Formats: sequence, structure tokens, C-alpha cells
Amino acid sequence: MEVRHLIDLADLSVERWEDITKLACDIRDHMDDYYGAGRGKILATLFYEPSTRTQMSFQTAMLRLGGKLIGFDDPGNSSVVKGESLKDTVRVVSGYSDIIAMRHPYAGAAMAAAMYSRVPMVNAGDGGHLHPTQTLTDLVTLRQEKGTFSGLTVGLCGDLKNGRTVHSLIKAMARFPGNRFVLISTPGLGVPAYIKEYMTAAGCPWQETDNLADAIPTLDVLYMTRIQKERFASEQEYIDQRGVYVLDAEKMKLGRVDLVVLHPLPRVDEITVEVDEDPRAKYFEQTEYGLYARMALIIRMLEGAAKLLEPCPKGSMHICANPRCITRTELYLPRLFDPSGKRLICRYCEDDFDPAERAIAEERMFFEEPPA
Amino acid sequence: MEVRHLIDLADLSVERWEDITKLACDIRDHMDDYYGAGRGKILATLFYEPSTRTQMSFQTAMLRLGGKLIGFDDPGNSSVVKGESLKDTVRVVSGYSDIIAMRHPYAGAAMAAAMYSRVPMVNAGDGGHLHPTQTLTDLVTLRQEKGTFSGLTVGLCGDLKNGRTVHSLIKAMARFPGNRFVLISTPGLGVPAYIKEYMTAAGCPWQETDNLADAIPTLDVLYMTRIQKERFASEQEYIDQRGVYVLDAEKMKLGRVDLVVLHPLPRVDEITVEVDEDPRAKYFEQTEYGLYARMALIIRMLEGAAKLLEPCPKGSMHICANPRCITRTELYLPRLFDPSGKRLICRYCEDDFDPAERAIAEERMFFEEPPA
Amino acid sequence: MEVRHLIDLADLSVERWEDITKLACDIRDHMDDYYGAGRGKILATLFYEPSTRTQMSFQTAMLRLGGKLIGFDDPGNSSVVKGESLKDTVRVVSGYSDIIAMRHPYAGAAMAAAMYSRVPMVNAGDGGHLHPTQTLTDLVTLRQEKGTFSGLTVGLCGDLKNGRTVHSLIKAMARFPGNRFVLISTPGLGVPAYIKEYMTAAGCPWQETDNLADAIPTLDVLYMTRIQKERFASEQEYIDQRGVYVLDAEKMKLGRVDLVVLHPLPRVDEITVEVDEDPRAKYFEQTEYGLYARMALIIRMLEGAAKLLEPCPKGSMHICANPRCITRTELYLPRLFDPSGKRLICRYCEDDFDPAERAIAEERMFFEEPPA
Repeated sequence: MEVRHLIDLADLSVERWEDITKLACDIRDHMDDYYGAGRGKILATLFYEPSTRTQMSFQTAMLRLGGKLIGFDDPGNSSVVKGESLKDTVRVVSGYSDIIAMRHPYAGAAMAAAMYSRVPMVNAGDGGHLHPTQTLTDLVTLRQEKGTFSGLTVGLCGDLKNGRTVHSLIKAMARFPGNRFVLISTPGLGVPAYIKEYMTAAGCPWQETDNLADAIPTLDVLYMTRIQKERFASEQEYIDQRGVYVLDAEKMKLGRVDLVVLHPLPRVDEITVEVDEDPRAKYFEQTEYGLYARMALIIRMLEGAAKLLEPCPKGSMHICANPRCITRTELYLPRLFDPSGKRLICRYCEDDFDPAERAIAEERMFFEEPPA
Repeated sequence: MEVRHLIDLADLSVERWEDITKLACDIRDHMDDYYGAGRGKILATLFYEPSTRTQMSFQTAMLRLGGKLIGFDDPGNSSVVKGESLKDTVRVVSGYSDIIAMRHPYAGAAMAAAMYSRVPMVNAGDGGHLHPTQTLTDLVTLRQEKGTFSGLTVGLCGDLKNGRTVHSLIKAMARFPGNRFVLISTPGLGVPAYIKEYMTAAGCPWQETDNLADAIPTLDVLYMTRIQKERFASEQEYIDQRGVYVLDAEKMKLGRVDLVVLHPLPRVDEITVEVDEDPRAKYFEQTEYGLYARMALIIRMLEGAAKLLEPCPKGSMHICANPRCITRTELYLPRLFDPSGKRLICRYCEDDFDPAERAIAEERMFFEEPPA
Repeated sequence: MEVRHLIDLADLSVERWEDITKLACDIRDHMDDYYGAGRGKILATLFYEPSTRTQMSFQTAMLRLGGKLIGFDDPGNSSVVKGESLKDTVRVVSGYSDIIAMRHPYAGAAMAAAMYSRVPMVNAGDGGHLHPTQTLTDLVTLRQEKGTFSGLTVGLCGDLKNGRTVHSLIKAMARFPGNRFVLISTPGLGVPAYIKEYMTAAGCPWQETDNLADAIPTLDVLYMTRIQKERFASEQEYIDQRGVYVLDAEKMKLGRVDLVVLHPLPRVDEITVEVDEDPRAKYFEQTEYGLYARMALIIRMLEGAAKLLEPCPKGSMHICANPRCITRTELYLPRLFDPSGKRLICRYCEDDFDPAERAIAEERMFFEEPPA
């Protein structure tokens, strides 16, 4: 059951999620059996922006499989790589390595890189767009700690408006039956409308609240995230609201005995250190499950590592309107869109725009013939 | 004979020093026999400040044992790690690795980290406080080059006031019988009073001099260190005194045929390059012995690598007065002190202070309830 | 057929080039057979200036042989190493590693380092001076893609005045019979006079042209390089000339069916992306051959890895006039010159100067007694 690339977790079937999370749990229990699965193989970690935690998790995963590492993590230092196109870097590095994990500040960069890679490519975060191995980590954690992805009441607390991690987890869990969501945030930082529509369309009950203490008693899982100070509507709201979204020993007393508390880390002060000693706090275990999740993923991707280079598709004449889309800096990329009503969705960054409104003016500035 | 953590060399018994230095010498002679002792194991090098030499020595040691490496060495680049508490980083990394070597700019950081690590922790330097593997290196060098730690006349030259390396070596050698010390420096850069008291209490003869040439003929070992220009009392003293503490071919002629010259490296100009060719110059060999010392240490620590996480002790209400103590930035740490007469000694940084004098005023500013 | 150090490709005999390039081609076809040739060995990559591409190629080569890696790549971060002499760093690192690849911004640095290294030293680029593994890569590419180094018509296009890569390739290919060179550049950016003399002396026909399109039909090999904008004589010349030296699909139509297009990478815009799909474009393959070239080189150098430290030769009293020569910053190096008519050639950087003209004045400033 091989995986060619992992750009978006939604590209994989639910059966593959089952397979990979099951494999991850088996790795946890029988680590030594998997030493050797990566023997003689090289993982390249191409980190165009620093993310020590994620990079270390990928690196450890490959080493624990008996594999080896190349890569870079300091874009300022990688002057040669920096000056050249993503395509050229990926073509060269995929001649050196057996699998690539890439992090990049632009949306769609992983999809763009996969088009030119001769080896499997994992998206280790492309701007604010996708970060599928974090969601995979969350699923492995649920499988291990709750034994199921279904029938759970999941509280999500913090900045739910801007949190990529939260959106991905909701979309993933909505694919399993019986899950319900309790969305805990200030009124201004609730989940975007399209996520609400997504939950409703999937038949998942959901409710919003601005009070963590009230919500806790009903939850099977509490997924905490940070609210950055500058996200609050005002300084006064920050001062008034701050403590409401901090998980402390007092609030933990309100939770069930089988509550599971998660956090993608790093935390700042949204969970007090005293909670760390509570056996229901599983966020440190969660990072360890992230290691097993990545080991499982690498195993499945190495199985699928035939030479992958295929002819590039023909591009459109439209230009994506998202200034942080990878197609806006890597001009040779074929521009690919999917229609959605009157609008077009960029296949790289998934931003939608109305070409009649925006594209024409920009086209004059940016137009280049896509490669033949 | 396992070692759980190595924070301070003084925590280990003299028997363990014997064991580790003996093992290091055996590794030197039978390197290949030890390839495999680290197989499947991962060393994490967490360097919160750069120290290329020390990091490379730890890394090489692990690789020569057949092990693998993760870590970081560029705090500016490790933004995620930088923003989070030492506790969280150590909890996460100890889920990825089998042993950790950490360097940190704050005194007591290694002890603090060991409290939360699930794997053995080596102190690779905590600010100006401790650097036990350098002293272990010096002991291995003496064992190899002089065959003994006892009955030696050891000259120490340079800035003896600020040199952590020199203080540690004196304290280590004072535990063996028959050693005497010749302390060679300007009057303003002599060893601190407490080191003199230490030598006297241990029954070691010692003398001070401001002339390297005069001292050399009596020495079995000459341990050179750098005097930074800005440490001299004045520009004029610097100009007058500089050459006095430079070891050159001329001064080497005054030394015995079995003199051993050491230096922790890097040197600047306190030993001229012509001395490098003298067979009594052993400072390059010394760095190689540092490799064997760290290999031996890693072997002993991997033997002791049971899961180490234990409940944290209860902290005091006092606050350490040392602004470079790790407890001053990591506020969740339990504050631990040992009484010493009227004063208290912070167990992290070993700074002493009189709580009556200093702590009360500061407590108002910094007080936080230690974790339960 | 061992190789002690590789400072300059010209130091090796043509037989050794044959041997290494043949071995590289065999590695390409039987990669797995060579896994293990580096087992238990450590490559140190000492990069005093960043070069991600070159470093990654050396690292991958060592990993593919089953070896391990230490090193640094960020001079700003390596404060300890930075402050000390090249000699000391090399002495220490050669106690940790089995082979060293070094890149340095100063000419002659690799030769200087080799004088103090106890293990084989590869020059991975010393300023604008030499970069022998790039030329070795080019030779392996020719062997693989053309089956021969002889009887070829080679076009070289771009900035031929400042291009180290181009000069080295010409000098290498002039040692084989029947090669002819077509030098394609603006009049101001042609090859230096000494390279023309070299080709003539070697009996190689050569011609200059300022038109890439005209030259293409005659070529077996087209070696493209970049012209930096600031190298053009004027902004107007840049605007007029720019397209002339850009290889695009149109110009490719003029080339033979068995043309081979090479480029040392990274490219900027001197080859359009549409050319990438042309089967005659071999520049991505070329970087992969660079991997095999370095694997072959490492194998031969590990075979020759006896302890290499030898007494330093006596130095001259002259001072090299090249301000970017390594002897100008590492003052302990013996100064070595070879006479060439009235002039002297510095053996480190190969800069020539007339000591009567330049050295005397400078000697007053820089003179130091070379080491005994």
C-alpha cells in the first residue's frame, strides 16, 4: 500500500490513514523490528524556513529506521540553493536522495516540488497552507490514547481562526462517523465559515463557546492551541480574556478521568506547567507519536519509490491572485486551476479567486508562457 | 558501573574516574573493538550556544561507536526551540534520543535539564560554571602521557582567575595523593581564594609565581591557557607582561625531557607555532584523548540508560541571586538550596548568597509558586 | 592506485584520471556493490564559506559508501574554529576524521591545510583558485555521455574570463588528443591569454566567437556558464548582448542530435527551462555524476590514508603579493615559490610576481620568521 507523495493528507484514502496509523502503533511497540527498513536510504530535509522540531522529528524517524540524512535548514546560509529555482534544487537533490521532506514559506511549494522530484516528496509544511504530518501525528495519538477516531467529542481551544493545525484535524476527523466538535475561542477567533460548512456537510454536530471551563466536562479530547496576544481584538480584550483560555490544574479538575489533553507544541503559557504532571496530559507523548507516524510514513513511501518523474501538465493563462502562492515566485510552473462555480481554485495553494475580477490586470505584469 | 547523568565531575567517585579513563585508554588502543557499542542509538547535541570544537568531539565519539546524531547548534536558527522552555525541549528531545549532550550559556542549565530528561544527560558546558568532559579529557591525557594522576608537579599558566578549566583540573587532581601545583600568572589573575583553600584543605602544596621561565624546570606537566588582553590591569601591563606568559622554543629548553605541555585549545598566541614540533607538546594529542574520553563516557552512560524521569523535588521560596543562573529564566524550576553556614548555596549554579541580605527585595519581583 | 591529497587535478597523472572516472562509471551502474567501502570511516566537511551544493554532494558520496559525517558549514557560527589558525583546526579535525573535504575563500588554503593534515585532504574549492572535483565531475560526465575524452569539439559559452570551472576543464581536456575548443563570449569576457597559450602549446585548435547560435552546429559538447550582469562592459552592452548567450529551444534546434549540453549549476537564466526537457540537456545528470566522481575519489583516497604528517619544508623570505593568498592570513606558513623566468610563482595560490618590484616594500610590513 504505497504512497507516492504526501502533499495533503486528504489525497490519501481513509484506508491508507488506517494503515499508516496502525503501522505507527506497531512501530511504537516493536521499534527494533523496524531498524533496517531504511538501510542504505537517504532522507533529504530541505527546510527553506527553520522548524527545528519538525526537522528533528523527520531526522530521528529516518535514523531509527537505519537510514541516513542530508539537507539544509538555514536558508540564509544556503546561498547557492537560495538563488536557484525550486525546480533545479529538487531535480538535483532528488538525484542524491531516496525521499525528501520539504518545508517552505510559500503555499503550494510542496506540490510544485513534487512535480519535478524523482523521489517521494513529503510536505513538512508549506506556508500557512498544509502540514499533513502534524495531522497524521494527531491521528496516531488518538488511535493510541483513545483506541478510535470515531464517536469522540473533541474540544478545540485557542485561536481557531488562523490555526492550520486545527482546521486540518477537523477535516480529518469529520471523515469518521460520530465525532462532534466543541469550538472554544473568543468570538473574533472562531473557525472560518468554510470549516463550519464542512462540518455540517459531513454531518458532524458542532457548537461554539467562549468558555473553556464550561466545555471541559463534556470532552473526550481537548486540543489546546496558542492564542497570540496580537490576535485579540484589543489590549483590553487580551487582559480580560487571557486566563479564560489557559488550561490549569483547576480546570483539569472539571475534566473526565479519561480526558486526553493534546497540544501541537511548542506551548507558551496556554497550559500551565503544573498540568504536565497530570496523567491525562498527553502532549509530550504526542510528539513521540509524531516520530512513529513519520517512521510509518517513510516506510510506506520508500515502498513506492519508483522513479516518479512524469511530463508536466499544460498550464493555464490565469495567474493565481494569492501573493504567497508558489506560482508567484517560481514563474516556470504550469498554472493549474480547478473550476468551482464562477471561481477558480489554484491547485497549488487552494486559494480561490474570480478570474474576471482580478486576473486580467495582473496578467499584464506577470504573464509568461508556461513550459511546453 | 553505570553513570546516570554527568553534570559535575565531582558527582562521580574516584573509582568511576579510574574506570572511565582506563576505558578511554583501551579505546585508543583498540578502537575497532568498540564500533558497535552505540549501534542503533542516537545522541542529541543541544547546543544553545555555538562550540564547534566540543560539539564535533561529542559527535565523532558517537559516530565512532556506531551511533547516530540529531541536534542543533545555532540558537538563532532554532526559533521554535528558542521560544519554548528548556523543560519542554528536553522532554521532547529525550523522546527522540538515547543520550543528550547539552551546552547552554546559563549556569545550572544541565542540572535543570537532567531533572526533566528521560535519557542520560551530559553537561557539555553550562555558562562559566562547569565543563566536566574537558576535565575528563585532561585526566585521560595524564593517564596516557604520564601514566598516573598522582605525585605530579603541575604548572598552570595564564588567566587563573577566570579559567573554569583550570579550577576544575585543580579540584580533580587534588583528590589524588602527592600532587603539587605551581600557579603562574600576573598578580591580578591568580586563582580565587576558594581554590587556594581547597588545595590547602586537600593537603596539596602550592605556590604562586609571575614568571613562567623560572617555573618550568620543576614541572612534570605545564597546562597553558590564554590570557585575554582585556583581563590585564592596564594596556601598559599588557605590553610589559605579554611575552612572560608565552611559551616559546626558548622557554621549552628549560623544561625537563619528560615534561608534558597541555592546552585546552583553541590557542591564540600563548604558545608559538615552533613549539608544535617539540615532542613534549601534547595539546593536539589531548584533543584526540578528548574523543576517547567522550566515547568511554557515552558507553558508561548508555549502560545506565533506564528511563530516568522522577518526581521533581519541592522548591524553596528563596530566589538565587546570580542573574546568570538558569532558575532566573526558567521560572517553573523548583528552587533548591543547600545551607552553608549563614549562607545558602544554589544547587543549580552553586552561587552562594545570604538570603537575609539579598533575596527579600528580589522576591517581590520574581516570586512564583514552584510547581507542586 | 591511491591518492594522498587532491589539491589540484593536475597533480594526478592522466592514468589516475582514467582510473577514477572509470571507477565512477562503475559505481553508477553497481551502486550497491560499493556500499560498505566507507564503513566505519568519517568524512569531515570543513566549509569556511557556504556552498550547499558541493557540500551536499560530498556528504551524499560518503553516506552512499556507508560512511559518516562531521563538519561545519557556517563560518559565522563556528566562532571557536574561526578564531584559531587553519593549522590548529586541521590538526584537531584530522584526529577525529579519516578524510577531509575543505572549502575556503582564500587561494592555496587546501595546500596549506594538507601540510598539517594527518588524513587525506580534498580541495572542495579554494577561493577563485582551484575546484578539482568539479572538473573531475565534468570528465566523468564526458566519459559517460560521450564515451571518450578525446577528439571532441567543445564549445564553452559565457564569462570565460573569470570562470575557474572553464579554465580547469580546458586545461584538463588539452591533455587528451584531438580536442578542439570553441570559445563563445563577449570580446571583453574571453579566456585569459595564458589559457590561449596553454591550448596552443598543447596543440589544441581553438577559435573565438561572439555568437552562440553560429557556433552550435559544429559542437559535440556545449558547456554553458553564467555571465553575471555586472561583468558586461556597460548597461547598454548587457541589454544588447544578453539574449545572445542564452540557450533556448530555438538555438537547440541548430545543434546536432548527439550534442551534450552541460552546466556546472546553479543556473540563473542562461538556459531557459524549456531546454530541460530536451534529451540532449545533461546538466542534471551531470550533478549526479558529480556524486559518483566523489564516491570514486573517496574510495581511492581512503586506500591511501596512511598517517601523512611530514616535516614542513623551509620557507622563503619573500611574501606572496596576492592579498587573497592563504599565506597572507596564516603567517606561520612556510612561504614556498617556484622560479619562472624573472618571476616567482607562489606554490599555494599560483600567483606570479616579480619580487624586485613588489615584495620588498611589503616585506617590511609582513615579515615574520617562517617556522624552523
